[in-house]
Amino acid sequence: MWFMRQAGRSLPEYREVRRGVGMLESCLRPALAAEITLQPVRRHGVDAAIFFSDIVVPLRLAGVGVDIKAGVGPVMDQPYRTADDVARLVERELDDAALSPIREAVALTVAGLDELSAGRDPHGSPGSDNSVGVGAVPLIGFGGAPFTLAAYLVEGRPSRDHLAARTLMHADPDTWRRLTEWTAELTGRFLCAQVLAGASAVQLFDSWAGSLSLADYQAHVAPSSARALTHVADLPVPGIHFGTGTGHLLAAMRDVPRAAGLVHSAVGVDYRTPLDEAAAALGADVPVQGNVDPALLAAPWEVLEAHVRDVVARGRAAPGHVLNLGHGVPPDTDPAVLTRVARLVHSL
Amino acid sequence: MWFMRQAGRSLPEYREVRRGVGMLESCLRPALAAEITLQPVRRHGVDAAIFFSDIVVPLRLAGVGVDIKAGVGPVMDQPYRTADDVARLVERELDDAALSPIREAVALTVAGLDELSAGRDPHGSPGSDNSVGVGAVPLIGFGGAPFTLAAYLVEGRPSRDHLAARTLMHADPDTWRRLTEWTAELTGRFLCAQVLAGASAVQLFDSWAGSLSLADYQAHVAPSSARALTHVADLPVPGIHFGTGTGHLLAAMRDVPRAAGLVHSAVGVDYRTPLDEAAAALGADVPVQGNVDPALLAAPWEVLEAHVRDVVARGRAAPGHVLNLGHGVPPDTDPAVLTRVARLVHSL
Repeated sequence: MWFMRQAGRSLPEYREVRRGVGMLESCLRPALAAEITLQPVRRHGVDAAIFFSDIVVPLRLAGVGVDIKAGVGPVMDQPYRTADDVARLVERELDDAALSPIREAVALTVAGLDELSAGRDPHGSPGSDNSVGVGAVPLIGFGGAPFTLAAYLVEGRPSRDHLAARTLMHADPDTWRRLTEWTAELTGRFLCAQVLAGASAVQLFDSWAGSLSLADYQAHVAPSSARALTHVADLPVPGIHFGTGTGHLLAAMRDVPRAAGLVHSAVGVDYRTPLDEAAAALGADVPVQGNVDPALLAAPWEVLEAHVRDVVARGRAAPGHVLNLGHGVPPDTDPAVLTRVARLVHSL
Repeated sequence: MWFMRQAGRSLPEYREVRRGVGMLESCLRPALAAEITLQPVRRHGVDAAIFFSDIVVPLRLAGVGVDIKAGVGPVMDQPYRTADDVARLVERELDDAALSPIREAVALTVAGLDELSAGRDPHGSPGSDNSVGVGAVPLIGFGGAPFTLAAYLVEGRPSRDHLAARTLMHADPDTWRRLTEWTAELTGRFLCAQVLAGASAVQLFDSWAGSLSLADYQAHVAPSSARALTHVADLPVPGIHFGTGTGHLLAAMRDVPRAAGLVHSAVGVDYRTPLDEAAAALGADVPVQGNVDPALLAAPWEVLEAHVRDVVARGRAAPGHVLNLGHGVPPDTDPAVLTRVARLVHSL
């Protein structure tokens, strides 16, 4: 079990180390990104770390003018909407050297996780040879799906309906394909760098996929997501494919890592679809991840506890269940509640 | 056929008459609201008018401090989140007299529609006795669903996930019920006033319902929506129940007008669910409304035309189909495209 966005604003120790440091800058300072990634593991005792980053980091590393505005989200230097815009954009290459801070941050994180695990393990001691390996908390690599990245690029900023991106995929499918093949390459290499530096799994975040019909998802989005995951298909890591509002897309999202050749993969399910229903839609051999409703983190403990127990019970319908939230931790969440949820889940 | 948000920013004649007039003020000036409601009927030749208003208008009429900020949406004077906040809020009553500008605007609109229809009808002439009645373009009354209204009140402003509202319904179900019974009363009386003044149908807009699981919708939302519609159940008007991202809620939304005693009602389907699938989920006796993807209004005509024809063809699976968009007209839509769509649909 772990929590999406467990590394972040809900933690006072996060707000402390981020003071005066911009979001993207904090992702690109290896020691800081590693420290932020480790914070929730130390505090909550979750079973996995998720690499602290942002889905637009590979854009920045490729030289695209992007910043993250507080209270708004990723904002581009311009919207990329025309064939010309996209032609100029995809000329940019992501130098392997640009990924160095990512590799460094991952290596520091993995070392930190090994130390933490050794400290937790009664049979190991910090610094001893057997502190590395068995029992170490795994690090999950982080990457945004090509559609969600492309939606930010086309819109130029966060939007509710992703109208401009959805227009482009129909109005000029060739330009759309060129754009998403490029974002797939960026995200794929971003994920691959994390795995080669020590991450044990990858999660592809397709935050906005729920805005699409199944037909549009299959025709204009699934191929580029599969393309991104082919970058890690030869590596011995499982994948998790996550989106929100994707109840109608679950089976299609399951098929994406399969198409990429990723043998082991789970599907992330947001809080709207009960896990027993999701398991029925996904088939008997697909593990699920999710789907505690983040809205209930602010409810009285009895209400939250009953909900978590229900999620765990329904998750038994799947062949495997990574307990998580159905969406990221809200910034104003009381971190003590998250710790309590982790303890509850470990007790079940 | 008609277009959700057909009266609005896509029309230059709308931007002209709105110049210097705030959004809520324009809803409360009867002659202006009527003129705005008539504009798209004149221009596009659509088969229905939708009363120009905003879902927060009944809040304003009940004395709640609410305004509509350009580029943001409805903003409350404070978020209403605690039992005390809600207790003070629901003491406010909507005086019948406060609804006068609504009744007046509806009456002016209906008179204007009768004139328009007479002008269109080769057998009638403007001003003659038979210009009223047969063939007049109907006016659809407009109201926000109690959940969506309550979500604005609890959040204090538009939000993506409606976390605070969804927290409240679980954390304090009694307060949530008190709040939504109050918003149901407001919206119900708002709709009833429109029908008594001449509207021929009502549409309940539950814009945010898609953020809910089916279980939450049924337990915490459907009862208050039914309560709102009981205000018009004894009147001879059909209803339309609309939301976005509601593929998983369609059958539950169908049952709401039925529970209210509204004999004839259709379900609005957003652009994500194909109408043949929606019809299968809804059963053989439920008409549908929708579901042209607004993103395609900006695509080349050939692409849009093929999509509209596909929507019409799939809509034949239902016992009735009101062609519409799957969501409101985007503000930057070329109005000539809407006129062309109306002509195409009328030719099919």
